Amino acid sequence: MPRDKERLARLQSGMANAGLDAIVCRLPENVLLLSGYWPMNGMSWVVLDREQEPVVIAPVGEEECIEDGWSNNTFFYGWGGVDDAPPDVSVARLLEETAVRLGLSGRRIGYEASFETIAPPYASGEHHVSARPANNMLNRLFNDSLVDVTAIIDAWRAVKTGVEIAALRRANEVAALGLEVFVKAAVPGAKESEVAAAVEAAIYGKGVGYRGVRRCRGWASVMSGPDQGAKAWYQFLTSSDRRLQEGDTVLLELGTVVEGYWSDLTRTVIAGRAGERVREGYNLVLEAQQAGIDTLRNGVPAEQVYDAARHVIEAGGWLNMYPHGAGHGVGFRYHEALPALSPGNKEPLQAGMVVTVEPGIYGQGFGGIRIEDNLLVTEDGCEFLSNFPRGLLETGA
Amino acid sequence: MPRDKERLARLQSGMANAGLDAIVCRLPENVLLLSGYWPMNGMSWVVLDREQEPVVIAPVGEEECIEDGWSNNTFFYGWGGVDDAPPDVSVARLLEETAVRLGLSGRRIGYEASFETIAPPYASGEHHVSARPANNMLNRLFNDSLVDVTAIIDAWRAVKTGVEIAALRRANEVAALGLEVFVKAAVPGAKESEVAAAVEAAIYGKGVGYRGVRRCRGWASVMSGPDQGAKAWYQFLTSSDRRLQEGDTVLLELGTVVEGYWSDLTRTVIAGRAGERVREGYNLVLEAQQAGIDTLRNGVPAEQVYDAARHVIEAGGWLNMYPHGAGHGVGFRYHEALPALSPGNKEPLQAGMVVTVEPGIYGQGFGGIRIEDNLLVTEDGCEFLSNFPRGLLETGA
Repeated sequence: MPRDKERLARLQSGMANAGLDAIVCRLPENVLLLSGYWPMNGMSWVVLDREQEPVVIAPVGEEECIEDGWSNNTFFYGWGGVDDAPPDVSVARLLEETAVRLGLSGRRIGYEASFETIAPPYASGEHHVSARPANNMLNRLFNDSLVDVTAIIDAWRAVKTGVEIAALRRANEVAALGLEVFVKAAVPGAKESEVAAAVEAAIYGKGVGYRGVRRCRGWASVMSGPDQGAKAWYQFLTSSDRRLQEGDTVLLELGTVVEGYWSDLTRTVIAGRAGERVREGYNLVLEAQQAGIDTLRNGVPAEQVYDAARHVIEAGGWLNMYPHGAGHGVGFRYHEALPALSPGNKEPLQAGMVVTVEPGIYGQGFGGIRIEDNLLVTEDGCEFLSNFPRGLLETGA
Repeated sequence: MPRDKERLARLQSGMANAGLDAIVCRLPENVLLLSGYWPMNGMSWVVLDREQEPVVIAPVGEEECIEDGWSNNTFFYGWGGVDDAPPDVSVARLLEETAVRLGLSGRRIGYEASFETIAPPYASGEHHVSARPANNMLNRLFNDSLVDVTAIIDAWRAVKTGVEIAALRRANEVAALGLEVFVKAAVPGAKESEVAAAVEAAIYGKGVGYRGVRRCRGWASVMSGPDQGAKAWYQFLTSSDRRLQEGDTVLLELGTVVEGYWSDLTRTVIAGRAGERVREGYNLVLEAQQAGIDTLRNGVPAEQVYDAARHVIEAGGWLNMYPHGAGHGVGFRYHEALPALSPGNKEPLQAGMVVTVEPGIYGQGFGGIRIEDNLLVTEDGCEFLSNFPRGLLETGA
């Protein structure tokens, strides 16, 4: 990845403004923020001094991942071999050496103490996170001078740099490899889990090697028909063994991570041919999404996105079927903390924010329809980072 | 799942022995241990009193997952809707009500404070974990009478019940759906990431609906040839865009989760036809694995498994290519803390433990060969939970 001078400058001026001398992070999403390096296993740490280059501590085997970032200052430790020390011992030693070298003792050190929703590392089948042992280690190393900067990091993350936006465009391109498979596979008779699996396989199989991508993965969930579809707003991350039937709404919820950068997309197609009420609902959701998108602009209160989408659905007489907010930040995680495009949120959007806009309607006996794209807020409007067609698609047509 | 009376009895007698009045957990792997329920999102909690049924607190939408477990005492909270309270507020309220109802104030409450390697929930693209806010909530609710019982839970988990062993057999059957695809797909010219994606797609696509399975997922990584293969013991969870070449070792690392229960398998095939040295290496690893498996029995020190496998590799003259341990516990997580089949570990194996046995050899210019199965330790030996053929397989033959 090109060196992200803009991010480094923003981080270090932000630290100055917050009175922080350094930051220590190990959540993969924050290691990525601070160094452009997306950890494979979640066993890596970054120390960023206010006036110096980020220092990375990483397990042997992640050399290539680190080269893809923009830190030039890495200390490796071996692990997993019969002669290697336990990783926590190696990390503590390297962190202590770093703290001494940077003169961090007694200074004001920020850390990520309150992240309770977290993104996985690339190896998402098993995480390595901080609990009591790591927190005790940090307190010992930094003499209890640690400051919880979770809210500050969330705010920094919400506004992306040019390098990060380019990475998110690529993530959405990889996600589209899956969407292309979805609209072909979601035909009457297909099994939900097989459709979802084909989407994931396209992302992993074709995505690796696409425009230099080393690591990517999709999480696809397909929820179809009058019952599964109706739950697709609160039980939205599972696919069943149900087979699609003629006229079903078929909703695909798709999270995609490409080198640590996330896309969050939803598409709904109709298996076979759409009935009249489904067609009406689909077009209403599309109109509501567009109304929300049309509000996006630097300085607009977040609630206006929701209000615009809601107004369309209410005017159509379907408000009782639209239970959730209009979207959220996306990029360093599937669902970022900021901004929330929710009713009553008067915080202004900022140019550089990347958000989803995703109204939907759901009903028992009807099914579920949601359309979700990823958009970059600009000074005078917005740009789509996702570019997959949004119009009604009937797979029997 | 059938009610696991054996697990509940073991937990409650274990709590009595440890002087614990109750346990509070929220890591998906421990919620599963305490209730048979595998959380979808990681937003669920379990309170187990020493003398009562487990109490589950869960988000709406996970009703079916809970039915698959063996708790009958669940309190739900809504989330994600515009009128819902934030999940942490709902959880705190329900936990407090539970604590009052069970009379837990001032009593000795165990919790999972030191788990730093963790299993994902089913929705593995995003986790919900305890950091400072949740830990503060627990301390407030339980008046600082919390005890870290991580080591105790690890020991309980290591020895599986009959119900859990049946679930692990099924997980290995689902994993085999992926292995069947692997041995067909790993031919010269195929791309590593596409082979891995096909394995994952078989597990997700065919696994859902297999013998009542609602939720499963595979993590497949394919590392082939003289360079990628050589790294396959410390950089073992990634697939590249490399295309398989004639004579390559092709190593598949495969983690599979089925309703929360994990299988961890490795197979190595030869793309095309094997050269003489690869053939010799393969048969040596297979012999070493069998030697390790032959030691498994209640009461045997864990190090003996490693020593037996190592002895075979050393006798063959390949010791400098065998850098890692012989295996580990598996079941509630991809890699469980106990037991470690590592040099010097004199802890005796116990009947009911489920372990991997997985020697391997790796070398630049040679590639990587590992064979890994999951085995149940019994009173007088062991049983395979995985049943996929282990002999040398050449995909060009």
